Amino acid sequence: MTKLPDNFQCLGLSGGVGGAKLALGLSKVLAPEQVTLIANTGDDFNHLGFHICPDLDTVMYTLADVSNKEIGWGQEGETWHFLEALQRLEGETWFQLGDRDLATHVTRTVKLGQGRTLSEVTQDLCRGLSIDHAIVPMSDDTISTVVHTASGETLSFQHYFVRDRCEPVVTGFDFEGIEDAEPSPGFLQALEDPNLELIVICPSNPFVSVDPILLVPGVKELIAERKVPMVAVSPIVSGLAIKGPAAKMMKELGMPQTATAVAEHYKGKYGEILTGFIIDEQDRALSASVEALGLETIVTNTVMVTLQDRINLANESLKFAKGN
Amino acid sequence: MTKLPDNFQCLGLSGGVGGAKLALGLSKVLAPEQVTLIANTGDDFNHLGFHICPDLDTVMYTLADVSNKEIGWGQEGETWHFLEALQRLEGETWFQLGDRDLATHVTRTVKLGQGRTLSEVTQDLCRGLSIDHAIVPMSDDTISTVVHTASGETLSFQHYFVRDRCEPVVTGFDFEGIEDAEPSPGFLQALEDPNLELIVICPSNPFVSVDPILLVPGVKELIAERKVPMVAVSPIVSGLAIKGPAAKMMKELGMPQTATAVAEHYKGKYGEILTGFIIDEQDRALSASVEALGLETIVTNTVMVTLQDRINLANESLKFAKGN
Repeated sequence: MTKLPDNFQCLGLSGGVGGAKLALGLSKVLAPEQVTLIANTGDDFNHLGFHICPDLDTVMYTLADVSNKEIGWGQEGETWHFLEALQRLEGETWFQLGDRDLATHVTRTVKLGQGRTLSEVTQDLCRGLSIDHAIVPMSDDTISTVVHTASGETLSFQHYFVRDRCEPVVTGFDFEGIEDAEPSPGFLQALEDPNLELIVICPSNPFVSVDPILLVPGVKELIAERKVPMVAVSPIVSGLAIKGPAAKMMKELGMPQTATAVAEHYKGKYGEILTGFIIDEQDRALSASVEALGLETIVTNTVMVTLQDRINLANESLKFAKGN
Repeated sequence: MTKLPDNFQCLGLSGGVGGAKLALGLSKVLAPEQVTLIANTGDDFNHLGFHICPDLDTVMYTLADVSNKEIGWGQEGETWHFLEALQRLEGETWFQLGDRDLATHVTRTVKLGQGRTLSEVTQDLCRGLSIDHAIVPMSDDTISTVVHTASGETLSFQHYFVRDRCEPVVTGFDFEGIEDAEPSPGFLQALEDPNLELIVICPSNPFVSVDPILLVPGVKELIAERKVPMVAVSPIVSGLAIKGPAAKMMKELGMPQTATAVAEHYKGKYGEILTGFIIDEQDRALSASVEALGLETIVTNTVMVTLQDRINLANESLKFAKGN
C-alpha cells in the first residue's frame, strides 16, 4: 500500500455485519487517530425498556474482537439464560438478547437516562471494550428507519428485520425524525477535519444502513464542499447480498440486483459526491457500466472471509484517497 | 395436624430467605385457596433502571422451587455473564444480578411501566413460574426502608444490606412513603376474609421485614378488629439470627439478642394483636418469659434445614388457628 501521511484522515460509514468487516479492516491498517467510523443508528429501537443500537453494537463488538462470528451478531461465547427465563415469564423473545450483550444495552440505557448523549455513552462503551479507534453514532438524535411494505403496513426496522425475518415485500423507506436531526459532534468533526482525504462507504445495505447516514441533514452538503473522494464498496456480489436483505429489497423495489444498480442508486441520490466504486472480482464484467456512471472503479475481492481479506479490502479502498 | 376446614384462611407475612422457608412450608400444608402470602416490599429499589423486589422474588423463587439454596438468594444454576460484562463496562456490580434473575426484573419493570400494579405484575410472574399459591406484595405503593446509622448517615436498605454488607451500626429505621400507602388489594381482601383464622409472622427480620408489613396504614387496625390469632416465629435462636442482620441490629439498638426481646418488640409495637409466639427448642428456657408477656407459646424446632422441617413448623404454627 501507498505510505499514508501521519495526519491522514479517513471516514468509514458502516451498517452492521458486512460494513463492520471493512471497518475492522480499516482499523487494522490505520492508526486510531487516522480514522473515524460512523455507525448507522436508524435501526436503533427501544425494546423491553432498553435502548438498543444493533449496528453500533456490531461495529463495537467486531472491533473489540468479541463478536459472535458463528451467528453473525451479538457476542462470542454468548449464553441465553436471560432469554430462557424471559420466555418462561411469557416475555417478548423475538429479539434475541444474550446475557453478555444485555450489559451493553443496560449500560447505554442507564447513561442515556442520566442525560448523556449517545456519542458520550458510545465512547464509554468503547473504552470498556478496550477499543482504540473512534466509533461514533451518525447522530445523537433519534432517527427511526420505517419500512413501507406492499400490504400498506409500515414496520419499524427491527420488526421488519428480526421479528418478521425480512419477509414483507418492501416498497420504500422513511427515516422518521431525520429532518430535525443533526450529525453527531464526532461525525461533524471528522467531516470538517482539514486532513480528511477519504470517505469509505462500507459494504452495507444501501437503503437502510448507508442512506440514513448520508441523509442526516448537512452531511451531503459538507461532503460536497470538502470535495473529498468518497468510495463505496458494493454489498451486492454476483447478484446476491453477502449478508442481509439488500438483494431481496432491490428486487422488490424493481431494481436489478447488481453492483451497477447499487452504484446507480448512490449516484441518483448523492450525485457528484460519490467518486469511486469497488466491485468484486466476480462482477468484473460490470466495471464498464459502473465507470460509465463517472465513477473511478477498482475490481478486487470484496468477499471478506479472513482477517487478511478485511485488511486487503481496506488497503484497496485507501487507494481512492485524495493524495493518491 | 388438626384437620382444617376447607374454607380455612391463613395469612402468612414474610420477608426474604428465613420467612420464605416457612412460607414454603405453609404452601405445602395448605391448598392454594387456603393461604395468602404477603411479602415485604420495603426493601424494593430501583437499580440500573430495574424495579427490584428482593423479598417478593425470594418468596416466589422459593415456592417455584427455583431458588438458589447454596447462596440463599437468586435462582438455582444461575449464571453471571451479564454481571461480568457489566463489570467490563465499569457498571455498578455491587448488587448481583444473575442472568435468569434479570428476566424477572425486566418483566416487572416493563409491566409497571405500562401502568400495571405491582400486585398484577406479581400475579403474572407467579403464573409464569407455575406458582399456585397467592404471593402478594404488602402494598402497591412505594414504601422504602431507610436505615439510620450511628454516623448520622441514612442509607437505603439495599445500600445498607448488600453494598455495605450490614456493616454500619444502625440506630433506627424509617419507612419512607408509608403514611400515604395502602395495603395491596390482595392483602386487604385476605385481612377482610370472614374465614381468616390465623396470621403467621414468618421468621423474618422484625425491624426491616415484618414491621413494614404491619405498619402499612390500616393493617394493625384491621387485624385488631378481626380478633384473629397472630403468631410470630422467632427469627432469633440461641442469640443468633439464622440468616441476616437481625441479631446484630438488636445489639446495636441496645436490645438483648433473644427470642424474648423479639416478642417484646412485637408486643410493644402491636400490643394485643400478637397472641402467640413460637420459640426454638434451643431457647426452651425463654418460654416462661415470653408467656409472661401474655403470649400463648409453643416450643419446637424452628431451624428449617429440610423441607420436612418447613412442613413441621407450618403445622406447628397452624395450631394457633382460631378454631383450634
